[in-house]
Amino acid sequence: MSSPQRQQNGPLVVAVDSSTQSTKAIIVDTAGTVWVTAKRPIPLLTPGMDRYEHDPRLWWTTTRDTIGEALASLTPRDRGRVSAIGLTHQRESFAPFTADGAPLANGILWLDGRAAEQIARYGNAHVHELSGKPAGVTPALYKMAWVRQHHPEYFDRADRIVDVLGYLVFNLTGLWASSTAAADSLGLFDVRARRWSPELLDIAGVRADQMSQLFPPASAIADLRPELAEQWGLEQSVPVIAGLGDGQAAGIGAAAVSPGVGYLNMGTAVNTGIESSEYIYNPAFRTHVSGIPGNYVLEVLQSSGSYLADWVRDSFGDPDHPGDPDVARDDLAAEAIPPGCEGLLTLPYWNAVQSPYWDALARGAVVGWRGTHTRAHLYRSVLEAVCFEMRRNLDHLESATGTPITRLRIMGGGTRSKVWRTIMADVTGVPLTVCAQSEISALGAAVLAMASIGAHASYLPDGSPDVAASATAMATFGQTVEPDLARYDRYREIGAVQARLYPQLREVFEEIARLSTPVERRGGDRQPAETGA
Amino acid sequence: MSSPQRQQNGPLVVAVDSSTQSTKAIIVDTAGTVWVTAKRPIPLLTPGMDRYEHDPRLWWTTTRDTIGEALASLTPRDRGRVSAIGLTHQRESFAPFTADGAPLANGILWLDGRAAEQIARYGNAHVHELSGKPAGVTPALYKMAWVRQHHPEYFDRADRIVDVLGYLVFNLTGLWASSTAAADSLGLFDVRARRWSPELLDIAGVRADQMSQLFPPASAIADLRPELAEQWGLEQSVPVIAGLGDGQAAGIGAAAVSPGVGYLNMGTAVNTGIESSEYIYNPAFRTHVSGIPGNYVLEVLQSSGSYLADWVRDSFGDPDHPGDPDVARDDLAAEAIPPGCEGLLTLPYWNAVQSPYWDALARGAVVGWRGTHTRAHLYRSVLEAVCFEMRRNLDHLESATGTPITRLRIMGGGTRSKVWRTIMADVTGVPLTVCAQSEISALGAAVLAMASIGAHASYLPDGSPDVAASATAMATFGQTVEPDLARYDRYREIGAVQARLYPQLREVFEEIARLSTPVERRGGDRQPAETGA
Repeated sequence: MSSPQRQQNGPLVVAVDSSTQSTKAIIVDTAGTVWVTAKRPIPLLTPGMDRYEHDPRLWWTTTRDTIGEALASLTPRDRGRVSAIGLTHQRESFAPFTADGAPLANGILWLDGRAAEQIARYGNAHVHELSGKPAGVTPALYKMAWVRQHHPEYFDRADRIVDVLGYLVFNLTGLWASSTAAADSLGLFDVRARRWSPELLDIAGVRADQMSQLFPPASAIADLRPELAEQWGLEQSVPVIAGLGDGQAAGIGAAAVSPGVGYLNMGTAVNTGIESSEYIYNPAFRTHVSGIPGNYVLEVLQSSGSYLADWVRDSFGDPDHPGDPDVARDDLAAEAIPPGCEGLLTLPYWNAVQSPYWDALARGAVVGWRGTHTRAHLYRSVLEAVCFEMRRNLDHLESATGTPITRLRIMGGGTRSKVWRTIMADVTGVPLTVCAQSEISALGAAVLAMASIGAHASYLPDGSPDVAASATAMATFGQTVEPDLARYDRYREIGAVQARLYPQLREVFEEIARLSTPVERRGGDRQPAETGA
Repeated sequence: MSSPQRQQNGPLVVAVDSSTQSTKAIIVDTAGTVWVTAKRPIPLLTPGMDRYEHDPRLWWTTTRDTIGEALASLTPRDRGRVSAIGLTHQRESFAPFTADGAPLANGILWLDGRAAEQIARYGNAHVHELSGKPAGVTPALYKMAWVRQHHPEYFDRADRIVDVLGYLVFNLTGLWASSTAAADSLGLFDVRARRWSPELLDIAGVRADQMSQLFPPASAIADLRPELAEQWGLEQSVPVIAGLGDGQAAGIGAAAVSPGVGYLNMGTAVNTGIESSEYIYNPAFRTHVSGIPGNYVLEVLQSSGSYLADWVRDSFGDPDHPGDPDVARDDLAAEAIPPGCEGLLTLPYWNAVQSPYWDALARGAVVGWRGTHTRAHLYRSVLEAVCFEMRRNLDHLESATGTPITRLRIMGGGTRSKVWRTIMADVTGVPLTVCAQSEISALGAAVLAMASIGAHASYLPDGSPDVAASATAMATFGQTVEPDLARYDRYREIGAVQARLYPQLREVFEEIARLSTPVERRGGDRQPAETGA
């Protein structure tokens, strides 16, 4: 792949992806070429077992600083071409704020597992059908109910309780607003009607007036505040475009907009999704508002992806190479281990399980240890496990839609691991095409910004922007990894054994949860729901 | 504890313990004071998954060199006091030899797991009753059947197929002989009659004339070969005394010779045992010939003890202290973790499971992982797991004998770990008294040698040596660790959940074994037994 040419004319957009580990801002042209990437880390706070938080002020300050850095790298002429700001964010995370944007508590993140009790109490098939979100760790709904129970003062004093994207829009425009394709991940939406559900707000213990104003994806929310435009050297008015969650954004960035073509994000979490013009819900996936106006995204989620490889590397040093963590060497060692890791099987539920069980009490397990196993076996086993789970989740997507998934566009840090992408192709049996751009969710936000200003196509007959056309124009691809069908057969056999771990251990996980509950609180889990369905 | 005084008069004995990791020779006086310890390592060979071997020549050369080193440290006068040589050994391990002691193959060790198929085929309750050994990984019986099937030439060419102690006796005396309390661990004995069983020899595929000549424990086999006596500066004739397996030897060394008092070896493997004047057999324990003439030892075995702590340390470096393995720091980190390791439970079957399931296909499992778990959680979890298993095994011993175990004498490397001995006391609920001597199995062999020469008491009415009297005279103890009963209750609750892991995972282990079997060999496991019961 030759180095892409920068477009010398036409619009540029700024796109921001504020994710769990960092905020990135990119500047992109109409060909999808990323001119510059600026990045600031956001420290993950872990104040207790299963608790994950952010200081929400960093959502904005990292956005401000990365946009500023990215724009500062442009010539004044190119800065004058900047025509819109696109946004994508880590979904489901939220925090309470005063009217002028001061946080009242830390942001509680999507992977935070504190609300097991609330999930058990309020989660059910009706809530799933209404919100598109199976009961599980990620939706904010249950964590809001936890806050209402344990820290009601946060919500009582809050003028606004918003998702990450909503907080960025407030800081960029002065308006408390978000996108339907971003805020729906809170789990408070009637996702068919695309508006806040009074019933779900009631479970969460929040009021409609505390929520963001909603805009459809790829629509302009408001112009950038003049003082920011001035600070950044922008003389023109620049609209802030209603963006989307990072999962859907990745699909758009990968131009996975046709039937049978999915996106597969091999990131910290692993998710895969496909576009659907119909609302479908199913226990195995969650249904999001798509960045393509009117569409939905059916998305399976496994919240422990490269997270696990990193966890192995961080938690257990390499005894043969002390003090020198080296991903390439770990990959090489894992490559030398045969499929199935000589009988070592992993259940990769370190962050509970989402698709297809949505069991907040589930935990990780590594089964089959013999003394001749090594750190490299563990490393390979967690990679294999993520792939076994993905193959089963693809089965669920295919049977719900009736459409076979014949190609996956892959992205995320995990695609740089040759051993992991080889295992993923062999286990799923699907050719995997690598997306060439690295900040693919930010690119998806840029696609919406470009579509919003009509950069690639006329608007559609209903007046909405043609997101699919912009996506196709801006996506670029690298190599395709073809599956080895002999290994695919072997992995199906091994995967069938790995699939038994959860059913066998489910009750043990329940008992572990019971053991972890302080004695004085036990039995509380069994209380009848405070809010009837 | 003050440094013990050396006895200036009276007999001295040399005692050798040839174990899995090394051979040790000690010189001991009648008060049990160890004058000198010499040690040589034996490299563990791991030629394949689940295979563990030794070069059997090292059994002898390490014995010769350690005895030589120990004796060289004595004055000529004290060398003249040396009155007997006692022996103990790693049980169940064996090798085939020519008549002049040349090995025909590597020694296959007790922890070697290659014979799963033979265990499934030949192991049954009748073999258990006859041999005192439940079907499982450790008895040589099944590994001999494996050799017969895969390398019949080793046995066809062998004049002798003997245990470690037998090979040492041959080299020391020129006689192919062993002790009933040593050779019974091969699993080829009618343990009630204390002689080779034609039926068991037939399963193993060996002949009675290839076996060692048997002597009762604490009887003199023969005098040391004159050339060795000369080489070592011994002018008197020195009898080599029929010894015993290292497990039984540890019990004798700890003077665990009264009802309700057991020994607990917190070593590489963990085992605990009690003396019994009756032959009792039970699925939870194996029954050995005791070093006390006429007695049996009921012994539970867990073959992954400090092995597991070492394995964690060797396999997974400490990322915070690269290249600096430090047991004390690992212990300190484990001590800071609460009982139950915040929901991390281990099934410690890295070397399959012996008591109480004797399942050669069982494997290790670590269940309950969350991202906030650390290496220290894993380290503590394996220590706890070994203790949970031990508590349940003590339950089995108590119910089979009707005698509560009210005190345990502990020994082995694991007793140096404060955190592990605290967990062991709290989990078992039994006061643990530390044996003061460090080479406690070698001391047990020394006790038999002293009893054999009547050093402490007249012979018993039946003419046999009074081993219990010598044991009591020679044992010395350090501190006693009392259990914390509140923690005992908490651990009982956690242990009940840990106890569910094996029943839940048993079938998964079977399927893992099936996956590991090369395709062309599958189905072989299901063949009917070639030898009827």
